[in-house]
Amino acid sequence: MTAIDARALPFAHVLPLSASLSAEGHLALGGLDTVALAAEYGTPLYVFDAATLKAQCRAYLDGFRAADPSSQVLYASKAFLNRPFARFIAQQGLGFDVVSGGEIEVLRAAGVDLATAYFHGNNKTPAELHLAAEAGVGCVVIDNLGEVALVEEAAAAAGRTQRVMIRVSPGIDGHTHEKTTTGILDSKFGLPIVTGAAEEAVRLILASPHLEFRGPHMHLGSPIFETDPYVLATELLAEFIADVCIGKLGAEVSDWSPGGGFAVAYRGEDEAPAIAAYARATVGVMQREADARGFSMPRTSVEPGRSIVGRAGVALYTVGARKDVPGIRTFVSVDGGMADNIRPAMYGSRYEALSAERPLASPEETVSIAGKYCESGDILIKDAHVPRFHQGEVVAIPTAGAYQLAMASNYNLAYRPAVVMVEDGAARLMRRRETAADLMAMDID
Amino acid sequence: MTAIDARALPFAHVLPLSASLSAEGHLALGGLDTVALAAEYGTPLYVFDAATLKAQCRAYLDGFRAADPSSQVLYASKAFLNRPFARFIAQQGLGFDVVSGGEIEVLRAAGVDLATAYFHGNNKTPAELHLAAEAGVGCVVIDNLGEVALVEEAAAAAGRTQRVMIRVSPGIDGHTHEKTTTGILDSKFGLPIVTGAAEEAVRLILASPHLEFRGPHMHLGSPIFETDPYVLATELLAEFIADVCIGKLGAEVSDWSPGGGFAVAYRGEDEAPAIAAYARATVGVMQREADARGFSMPRTSVEPGRSIVGRAGVALYTVGARKDVPGIRTFVSVDGGMADNIRPAMYGSRYEALSAERPLASPEETVSIAGKYCESGDILIKDAHVPRFHQGEVVAIPTAGAYQLAMASNYNLAYRPAVVMVEDGAARLMRRRETAADLMAMDID
Repeated sequence: MTAIDARALPFAHVLPLSASLSAEGHLALGGLDTVALAAEYGTPLYVFDAATLKAQCRAYLDGFRAADPSSQVLYASKAFLNRPFARFIAQQGLGFDVVSGGEIEVLRAAGVDLATAYFHGNNKTPAELHLAAEAGVGCVVIDNLGEVALVEEAAAAAGRTQRVMIRVSPGIDGHTHEKTTTGILDSKFGLPIVTGAAEEAVRLILASPHLEFRGPHMHLGSPIFETDPYVLATELLAEFIADVCIGKLGAEVSDWSPGGGFAVAYRGEDEAPAIAAYARATVGVMQREADARGFSMPRTSVEPGRSIVGRAGVALYTVGARKDVPGIRTFVSVDGGMADNIRPAMYGSRYEALSAERPLASPEETVSIAGKYCESGDILIKDAHVPRFHQGEVVAIPTAGAYQLAMASNYNLAYRPAVVMVEDGAARLMRRRETAADLMAMDID
Repeated sequence: MTAIDARALPFAHVLPLSASLSAEGHLALGGLDTVALAAEYGTPLYVFDAATLKAQCRAYLDGFRAADPSSQVLYASKAFLNRPFARFIAQQGLGFDVVSGGEIEVLRAAGVDLATAYFHGNNKTPAELHLAAEAGVGCVVIDNLGEVALVEEAAAAAGRTQRVMIRVSPGIDGHTHEKTTTGILDSKFGLPIVTGAAEEAVRLILASPHLEFRGPHMHLGSPIFETDPYVLATELLAEFIADVCIGKLGAEVSDWSPGGGFAVAYRGEDEAPAIAAYARATVGVMQREADARGFSMPRTSVEPGRSIVGRAGVALYTVGARKDVPGIRTFVSVDGGMADNIRPAMYGSRYEALSAERPLASPEETVSIAGKYCESGDILIKDAHVPRFHQGEVVAIPTAGAYQLAMASNYNLAYRPAVVMVEDGAARLMRRRETAADLMAMDID
């Protein structure tokens, strides 16, 4: 490694913490040359930086425990999960927010203590609820009135008492993308407070012999770059706890959760609030409200996903075709695209790109970085300011850790990418690249 | 089966041709009760109707061969492909439009004659081009200038002459979704005629010892509900053939293709043009232009995908949670969603829904049919006019054959659905449902 300060790298604040320059002047992650990683594992390749993951887990634990020492940090598995990754996250002291039977099965296969798992979802199936009860999932977050009876039935069948929270819909707009805002009333998620549905759910839970009510949960959407929506929603939750749960129904409230949705910078100019700011807007407000309203501060659980894993991941691609349409646009195509990262096509998400071979090279032109899939919408970055990439050059797209592999498809019968974790000069293959045999494994002739 | 005329079913013109009522009054496909299929294979379940597939393949062969007896019909594999399905399509007399090494491998595993395959894509990798040459892919459709040398090199390495076409960009707007329009100049696809790039490509091909130039190809996007864009683009292609390929460069032009993009009705009120209308707007126009300009009519290849497979597929789901937000919206959740069908979230695609148990039931309310995945955008149908579905009811969403399973993901670690083909009272499992073990097959501890 050369002695260059990593902060001198372009886009340093969206690259993983371990980003540096290799002896060859290439982008290095975890002390490893990314061009060499691309040569060894092929592209598209997803590289996760253990140092960034550990630092983010630690920052959440410290940031929220400074505000509430009993705080739990639950990793939102839907951002990215596989078996070795689950084990890694558990080793950092985090629990899990899970949303399906598949996520529960992966945690179980990873040997994770399922008591640390909170099960979410607007339509958990009876089979999934039975699996959760049998596997010992710590808490089920009930999302609608009909679910109370389903969870009671599953808990009774498993012969256990199931801890439950309720997800309330506070009626707050998180000011994020229409497709990912969830705190508003017009949402498939959660029990509205204003309609009385949340109160009715608590009443039903208290009357269910195998359910133990723990408290309310909310989630405003993702990513949320402002803290005001958390303040407003936490105030509403505190009022609900004081007036309805405790005051009206006589329930004990031992837990609460402001959910997740914490933002992360994707581009050079993005600024995401600090974890301490999120903690103040949630735990701080709940503490103040608890004091003012005279109830005991419940334990806080938060559910970061994107903000744990987003920045830790970098996608590496190899440049292929170049197409110049004079006066209109230049397209530079890479060997991945919407099959491994559907976010630009789906949400209009914006990214940066830099050369892994020449990370310090200055921008020379404005091009669109296109994927290789047969669809015009398969453009990874529109109007990227980049050096003139040559055919075969390895390009890095930072902030690739969240909701890319998680939503990856085999569109065009693409093989989903290999994934490596890097740390202190060592790479560990965490997921191998798919093969044609994998694509056909479910086919029956 | 009862004697009811299938046309009496609601949404009859978007359901498969074999749709009827079972003895129990349920929706039947291929003579099989869909409620029984859902019970046997579980939900979400994708059912493909062999009769519709056969009829559509036949209609394309007949419709285009009536206009040009030498016409080839190539199935656009990206709409949906697996091993048994490839074999089925080949048995109907169609060739294949393929866009990746993965699709080539599946055709090869299915025992399909790869001479019937045309290889497309804006960024075919060198590895894919070598695979195509070695596997004997019939024609490579060159998309950009740099690709000429790559195809020449792959053909030389395989010791064969490779037939090639060029994909030209005619500069015509197909008036479809921004993400799926491809005929305009501002597209990653194709060699523009107006900039001289298409001409240069032909010149380079003619100078390449292992390449045999066959003619031009275009593709306007998908789905295209009008025929005028085809007429205009075909006229431009004819001019290019006459003036540039033949007149200026002295090339022989044995083949041409207007691509695909032919529309299909997704909802009750949709009207897609007849195949004969598409044939008139393409083959008819090319024939007229060939006569007028004095060149021999080249052989036509068309590439329907959506219009072969879209209507043949029906997705079956089981109803779960119901959430009423008084005065705002009612959400009825099913056990699938954006993981198996991302089209509503991605393109705003609209669908119909009917009860598989009570297909003749009249609409009673307006609800949103929500998926089960943890994202607000996971709504399959906004404002569906439907009977009041009960928990556990099997719901059918027609026109599910194209670009749903093809783009399916394991988001939320969902298991991708099972797929059955039905015909004459028999069901054949064509793809089994994924399991937790499948999800972890690539994981390395």
